[in-house]
Amino acid sequence: MAEDKLPTRAEDFSEWYNKLVLKADMADYSPVRGCMVVKPYGWTLWENMQAGLDRRFKETGHVNAAFPTLIPMSFFEKEKEHVEGFAPELAVVTHGGGEELEEPLVVRPTSETIIGYMYSKWIKSWRDLPVLINQWGSVLRWELRTKLFLRTAEFYWQEGHTAHASAEEAQEETYRMLDVYTDFAINDCAIPVIKGVKTETEKFAGAVMSTTIEAMMQDKKALQSGTSHYFGQNFAKAFDIQFLNRENTLEYAYTTSWGLSTRMIGAIIMTHGDDQGLILPPKVAPIQAIVVPIYKTDEEKSKVMEVADKVFSELKAAGIRIKMDDREGLTPGFKYNDWEMRGVPVRIEIGPKDVEKGSVALARRDVAGREGKSFVSQTALASTVSGLLSEIHDSLLKRATEFRDANIHDPKSYNDLKKVVADGWAFSYWCGNKACEAKIKEDTKATARCIPLEGQPEGKGKCIVCGNEAEKKALFGRAY
Amino acid sequence: MAEDKLPTRAEDFSEWYNKLVLKADMADYSPVRGCMVVKPYGWTLWENMQAGLDRRFKETGHVNAAFPTLIPMSFFEKEKEHVEGFAPELAVVTHGGGEELEEPLVVRPTSETIIGYMYSKWIKSWRDLPVLINQWGSVLRWELRTKLFLRTAEFYWQEGHTAHASAEEAQEETYRMLDVYTDFAINDCAIPVIKGVKTETEKFAGAVMSTTIEAMMQDKKALQSGTSHYFGQNFAKAFDIQFLNRENTLEYAYTTSWGLSTRMIGAIIMTHGDDQGLILPPKVAPIQAIVVPIYKTDEEKSKVMEVADKVFSELKAAGIRIKMDDREGLTPGFKYNDWEMRGVPVRIEIGPKDVEKGSVALARRDVAGREGKSFVSQTALASTVSGLLSEIHDSLLKRATEFRDANIHDPKSYNDLKKVVADGWAFSYWCGNKACEAKIKEDTKATARCIPLEGQPEGKGKCIVCGNEAEKKALFGRAY
Repeated sequence: MAEDKLPTRAEDFSEWYNKLVLKADMADYSPVRGCMVVKPYGWTLWENMQAGLDRRFKETGHVNAAFPTLIPMSFFEKEKEHVEGFAPELAVVTHGGGEELEEPLVVRPTSETIIGYMYSKWIKSWRDLPVLINQWGSVLRWELRTKLFLRTAEFYWQEGHTAHASAEEAQEETYRMLDVYTDFAINDCAIPVIKGVKTETEKFAGAVMSTTIEAMMQDKKALQSGTSHYFGQNFAKAFDIQFLNRENTLEYAYTTSWGLSTRMIGAIIMTHGDDQGLILPPKVAPIQAIVVPIYKTDEEKSKVMEVADKVFSELKAAGIRIKMDDREGLTPGFKYNDWEMRGVPVRIEIGPKDVEKGSVALARRDVAGREGKSFVSQTALASTVSGLLSEIHDSLLKRATEFRDANIHDPKSYNDLKKVVADGWAFSYWCGNKACEAKIKEDTKATARCIPLEGQPEGKGKCIVCGNEAEKKALFGRAY
Repeated sequence: MAEDKLPTRAEDFSEWYNKLVLKADMADYSPVRGCMVVKPYGWTLWENMQAGLDRRFKETGHVNAAFPTLIPMSFFEKEKEHVEGFAPELAVVTHGGGEELEEPLVVRPTSETIIGYMYSKWIKSWRDLPVLINQWGSVLRWELRTKLFLRTAEFYWQEGHTAHASAEEAQEETYRMLDVYTDFAINDCAIPVIKGVKTETEKFAGAVMSTTIEAMMQDKKALQSGTSHYFGQNFAKAFDIQFLNRENTLEYAYTTSWGLSTRMIGAIIMTHGDDQGLILPPKVAPIQAIVVPIYKTDEEKSKVMEVADKVFSELKAAGIRIKMDDREGLTPGFKYNDWEMRGVPVRIEIGPKDVEKGSVALARRDVAGREGKSFVSQTALASTVSGLLSEIHDSLLKRATEFRDANIHDPKSYNDLKKVVADGWAFSYWCGNKACEAKIKEDTKATARCIPLEGQPEGKGKCIVCGNEAEKKALFGRAY
């Protein structure tokens, strides 16, 4: 067990992450190169995340549907930038039912093409618009250097695909879904993301504009956590999505797509985790509270379990995702470590003295040791625990926001920028020139994460690289 | 529009089905041979069905997880019967990331093999058992003769895979999940299924025993609607799933799998639908009640819409899945037909006279014309509609049960059997001999659907084919 110990984040952040994913039972490597297995604990987290997103999608008028996993190879060739972007990553089915196929099929890396094809069949008139469809599923992008959740050949996600009668409406949709992602990241995952527009270099293959939410991990690297793209008429032209507009003229539709994946699980782990293991945000945690009964004798056990069972039932009835750890033959200390590794936000300890006093001990996962412990009455415990879960959410978000803000710098010179992006982000004026962006990447490995939509100073400035006039500031940092 | 009219079931049941799926906007053909697109209306039905199943799975102790879509070809070769059963149906990935793969990968047709491999890594001791995992997703079985929902290359389903420390426990699990499917079919889908054991000929490739729920469609053909398999140690031996038992001896685990797919949507359509379109069971219907406001003048409109909006809000708040059809430029009659085609269980009509009287008209989808119409008070309408939805469920179930029972026959001779299975099912003693089963199939195209677990007469009888002693009766019928 010792050699398999979780390293501290300071010792080796990357190895801390890799081991933690396994030790917390979130996911496992599979025998299929590049593909992962999401274990029940990790999948339940994803289900809770899905529920939070799906509710927001439906509130904004979207419906779900399902399109084929396999896509004819020729579809990719219809949009030039799209095929260039995805061709190197495709997994190709060449045989089916024992015979070689006339046309190879691709395991979808994303579904713009097949959905575009269907939309061209379905959309005839402005009355058919907008079409607001989302799909939950997995996609495959050939990838051999696996890092669980962050970079795998197959990953799980949702992809929204919408079609509109005007450019304005499609752009509004693009920003609306970026806001949905932002709201989800902040309010469900306690991750303070920055929303912005991708540069030409970094945008999605085939998009007119890509927007993104970017999060800062504890190693100060950026993680692109969700993207929302505006395609203009690019895909409509490639797939002939035309509609009769109100003036009775044929016009190409305006489309968008937006996706958020199981990468966000990686973001949660690397934003909140500590040297003891995961710290899961309460809103999406598979288990929000774990009950650990403490006893030595049979007499103590029967008294303690009576209270523990009552607490369990009351909190469960109040809608708290609670679990009882009544495993025999394990010490309370072992159990504490176990649930700390798995990041359960609140631990409820109940021992013989608590039974006498009518109290329980609550331990917050996000505050170590005595400071995180409180002794509270068994009366109205559901509301006490609910309150504590909210407090933990707020506290995680505050901590992450402070960490991020402390590590975004405003370098005064290009030399200064080169230093700060080695251990943080730079928020600097950039002229918009690809050459300047490329120079930063070459010199520092930092890329333009986005041009933030909020927090831009008033007025123009000078590009941090070339000194020419710059309209806006961009964020630069090393990224996953 | 006329040539695209829905035929009656009597005219052409198969064509009625094909057209209805399209006209009710449930699904569409895709450009990928054999694969379908499930449209939002069909997918929302499936989401409601998923919710009903998933709740039952979790109540019986199961958790969800996700395993890779691609499986190494060699995995299939580890279980002899399994590979024989699935080899002709495989879609094979031979290229990835621009290179030919060393070992081809198969798009999963089912996941026993990859999950078995992972279980062999995870299971070490009896303490690790049982493992009770389910997966939601899609699978691919090469198939060119497509019938939407019933037979497509890719289909959507759930597949449960469990591992146990004893044969008894695994068999209990097999029957438990068969009961879960039965309960779901009857209580959520209003489909009176018959549960039973598959014959050796009809069982799943690699199983020791397969169980099934069988439903009778309105054309009197059988539809296998869900299956639950007991594998004994077959897959454990193929994938080396061994555990240290309580006696500290290595033993192979006992495994099961069980699945229910989007085929069940086909079962719903063919069990309940009529010549006007779908009739959806209220528990899973995407829309349970549709409000159609009726007015001619602007003055009428404003009065009617006030009541319609109030009704809509009240019923929505009561948890009824309700939609308002306030489309302009369409007659009430057109709207009635439209929602009848889509099978919405209850229509709420509100006109100027209803506003005056404080009433609304309720039309049940399952009872045509005046007989299905009632005029009820606007007061306590949510509870009236909830009651009506329950009544519709019961009535659909009763109708389907009576239809099924009227079409299951007890032939007195083999000649008699040959006649009845041309237009119904035979419930007859069968000796268990494959030759007798094969003879029925050859002579009549009817197959042994199952040996029902319930409703068996006491005592033995004589095989309907060969006259030899037979322990049990089996159901024979033509099947999808």
